[in-house]
Amino acid sequence: MLALGLLKTAPAEAFNLEGKGTGKHIIILGAGLAGMTAAYELKKLGYKCTILEARSRAGGRVWTVRKGTRETEIGGEEQTAKLEQGLYFNAGAARIPHQHEISLHYCRELKVPLETYNNINEAGFIYNDGEGALANKRVRIREIHNDMRGYTSELLAKAIDQDALDRPMTVEDKEVLIEYLRAEGELDPDKLYKGTPRRGYTTPPGAGNAPGKLADPYELSEIIRSGLIGHSFYNIGDYIYEQQMTMMQPVGGMDRISDAFERQVGKDIEYGAEVREIRKTTAGARVIYANGSGKVKEIMGDYCICTIPLPVLSGIASDFSSPVLRAIDSVAYYEAGKIGLQFKRRFWEEDEHIYGGISRTNMDIHQIFYPSNDFLSKKGVLVGYYNFGEKAVKVGDLSLAAREKLALEQGGRIHPQYWEEFEASFSLAWHKTRYSQGAFATYTSDSRERFYPALLQPDGPVYFAGEHTSYLTAWMAGAFESARRSVRDLHARVMSTQQAQAEVKG
Amino acid sequence: MLALGLLKTAPAEAFNLEGKGTGKHIIILGAGLAGMTAAYELKKLGYKCTILEARSRAGGRVWTVRKGTRETEIGGEEQTAKLEQGLYFNAGAARIPHQHEISLHYCRELKVPLETYNNINEAGFIYNDGEGALANKRVRIREIHNDMRGYTSELLAKAIDQDALDRPMTVEDKEVLIEYLRAEGELDPDKLYKGTPRRGYTTPPGAGNAPGKLADPYELSEIIRSGLIGHSFYNIGDYIYEQQMTMMQPVGGMDRISDAFERQVGKDIEYGAEVREIRKTTAGARVIYANGSGKVKEIMGDYCICTIPLPVLSGIASDFSSPVLRAIDSVAYYEAGKIGLQFKRRFWEEDEHIYGGISRTNMDIHQIFYPSNDFLSKKGVLVGYYNFGEKAVKVGDLSLAAREKLALEQGGRIHPQYWEEFEASFSLAWHKTRYSQGAFATYTSDSRERFYPALLQPDGPVYFAGEHTSYLTAWMAGAFESARRSVRDLHARVMSTQQAQAEVKG
Repeated sequence: MLALGLLKTAPAEAFNLEGKGTGKHIIILGAGLAGMTAAYELKKLGYKCTILEARSRAGGRVWTVRKGTRETEIGGEEQTAKLEQGLYFNAGAARIPHQHEISLHYCRELKVPLETYNNINEAGFIYNDGEGALANKRVRIREIHNDMRGYTSELLAKAIDQDALDRPMTVEDKEVLIEYLRAEGELDPDKLYKGTPRRGYTTPPGAGNAPGKLADPYELSEIIRSGLIGHSFYNIGDYIYEQQMTMMQPVGGMDRISDAFERQVGKDIEYGAEVREIRKTTAGARVIYANGSGKVKEIMGDYCICTIPLPVLSGIASDFSSPVLRAIDSVAYYEAGKIGLQFKRRFWEEDEHIYGGISRTNMDIHQIFYPSNDFLSKKGVLVGYYNFGEKAVKVGDLSLAAREKLALEQGGRIHPQYWEEFEASFSLAWHKTRYSQGAFATYTSDSRERFYPALLQPDGPVYFAGEHTSYLTAWMAGAFESARRSVRDLHARVMSTQQAQAEVKG
Repeated sequence: MLALGLLKTAPAEAFNLEGKGTGKHIIILGAGLAGMTAAYELKKLGYKCTILEARSRAGGRVWTVRKGTRETEIGGEEQTAKLEQGLYFNAGAARIPHQHEISLHYCRELKVPLETYNNINEAGFIYNDGEGALANKRVRIREIHNDMRGYTSELLAKAIDQDALDRPMTVEDKEVLIEYLRAEGELDPDKLYKGTPRRGYTTPPGAGNAPGKLADPYELSEIIRSGLIGHSFYNIGDYIYEQQMTMMQPVGGMDRISDAFERQVGKDIEYGAEVREIRKTTAGARVIYANGSGKVKEIMGDYCICTIPLPVLSGIASDFSSPVLRAIDSVAYYEAGKIGLQFKRRFWEEDEHIYGGISRTNMDIHQIFYPSNDFLSKKGVLVGYYNFGEKAVKVGDLSLAAREKLALEQGGRIHPQYWEEFEASFSLAWHKTRYSQGAFATYTSDSRERFYPALLQPDGPVYFAGEHTSYLTAWMAGAFESARRSVRDLHARVMSTQQAQAEVKG
């Protein structure tokens, strides 16, 4: 029987190590999630921690832009967010996959309330800039999703009828599969796709004599020739493992997570501490840094956990081994840009009935994200672009004013209300952001093989952590898992050293 | 150009009628959403309203069960909810489609905060009770979704390669379609489906040397023969127009909406007023009812708006016309049952990483709904079944204890933790619930043609409203739209009568 106690009921992802590290001092470089998590866990084990953070804030790429947020990119203009009090957007990490148990664990342990991040919204738009009858206009995602389900189900049902399958199937299996396709595509009795309420109405149903008027499906050839299935991100965005529903976000901004860690380890953080040198000594690690007043200082630790992003670390003097130095110089980081656009009216909700989710396009803006919170309120902040690679480089090279103009012009083709309702913007290019210099590490199978292993070993007293030391690059879970990994390795070494010393003394 | 002022910017769905109904008295039967909305809008127009409500509460089928909620079904046992303070479940209406502009309008106008109702969760389970290797065990929705996308994409790509399509396509179109299928199904270079990260890992990726281990796909024939695509609700639940994301719910319970209306019209409601007779007179409408103390009373109005569900109305004496009486007796209502199960631990979150969404099964419980709110908190209430038709009748005919036992036994096959964590239940059968006697009207094309029209005309001074007088049956939007429809019609009649009288006097 399905009896009592069949499953373990301990909370997932607790992190309980044995032994105490009392008396040992760990220097942690970077007060992003990886650095703060390492300190948080090390302190539970009795270690003394000092975190050096170059910025005047904690959180690293967990960064929520609010009224008064200031930033000056490398070679860029000074920028101060003119967002209204209470409005915000998550400039870095913005969504938590339900699969990332460790992220949820820390939210639970540190009491950070979460809410649904609505990553999927069939009301969002696809806008393809190109040729074709359906290009250069906005079409609802639900129209393309359901038309494609319909047409592909129809085509496959016909192929099955004609016994044109490569894969051998029994008659009974074929019958079940055809019934599935009939439901999947909402095919008519002749197994033809002729449209469906799922894709929407031109006149919605109502009370009285208002059955609603169905919208006609698009022609398959029109969809194809208008580029609406020509970019895989138009269809698979929802399928990706980490981007499937459910996704979550902290209530009030992603920095609720970094704030929660800062409450635990904030007094161990020295802000404005720009690392200049990392040295291995016989006794441990020596770090030279310029403090907030520009004064050069030195700090000694038994060990060091370095979470500095590799493009930044590449510019810091060190006596790391040559495999480590090559890895630091060689692992690629992705370029990414984001812009927050504050509007004086939530027209996407009021006029277009879009509540959260994403519109996708092949224009430079790549995507528009609608807020999943504070529905029905007055003002709101959209993410007007979140782009990568070439597009991010191109847009990131523009002046702040030109980025805003591009976001308004391209986004305005999808939402003409942009022009009337726009109030303020705040943009960033992660690859040009001081102390990050990239959005996240992007490994190829070649760089995983050649460079990644060097980052997994301690270089003398120095351990490496951060999303770039994980297979969860770009996700907060990568930072969390990597922090635990470095703490586990470091602590095991301390314990085995204690053990060895105890044996010698004994 | 996409210029300023291209779109109207007035809030969607405002309801502004001209003229005043001062001096006219409208009797409204039922303080559900339709009745309260009618009163709310009529009062804006200057009408005097009296709402007779048989229950001791407003809201009708908008009903949130909380600690102390009491109910006795027709022929049933008395039941008092033993839920913990602060916990609740929505026994009736539970989700708001983003397409239902009118529902969002009233939430905006009456300041009811909304949050995402997470109707889609790829982490939910499918459990098919039957034959086959994958039957009688839980499989994640994401596994079946992605395996089926993979196999059907592979089959269709092969058929296209072999020119086995019924529908003529150009070579170029075929190429684009094959690229689409490659992305859709994540096919390998030979266009074969061999699994995908989208369906999940046996060991998830992590930090260091942890690339993760992919789970193998199920065999197509196993999926088919285990019944996992044999019930259309296993795949199309997410596609249905009203059930696509985004869906929403009021923060704190669906009764936040009825509470908001009650704040507007509550002093016009007479609770405990059980209607006994509805009569048309030369002057208007006369309604005889038993009040809360059982005393029979009579009330006169110039007009009446009757929102009483038809199965209840069928038992009330009236002098309605025979087409109306036939409609009242003939329109079918669907049976539906729900049970709320309180657990002392949110094991579905902690153990199984399910945050909102639905598990689906062919067992009597039909589905399990996980809460979309208060993630990571300690206790929670699942909807242990939400079933319809035959299943609802069968389960509804059981004693309260037997319903609970069935929900635990069947749900416990999906979640063995049920047995250890269960604390309390509250169940209901809408078809046995006094003053509702059904979940919602279900029209066939035949009953739409034969009976529906009679409900759209006023029968003398009596107008009919409620979801059953709409094409949005089962949805709150049906109640809202129907209320406006009755107000619009009634007000137009009053205005034209005033006009006629003015002309006579003139």
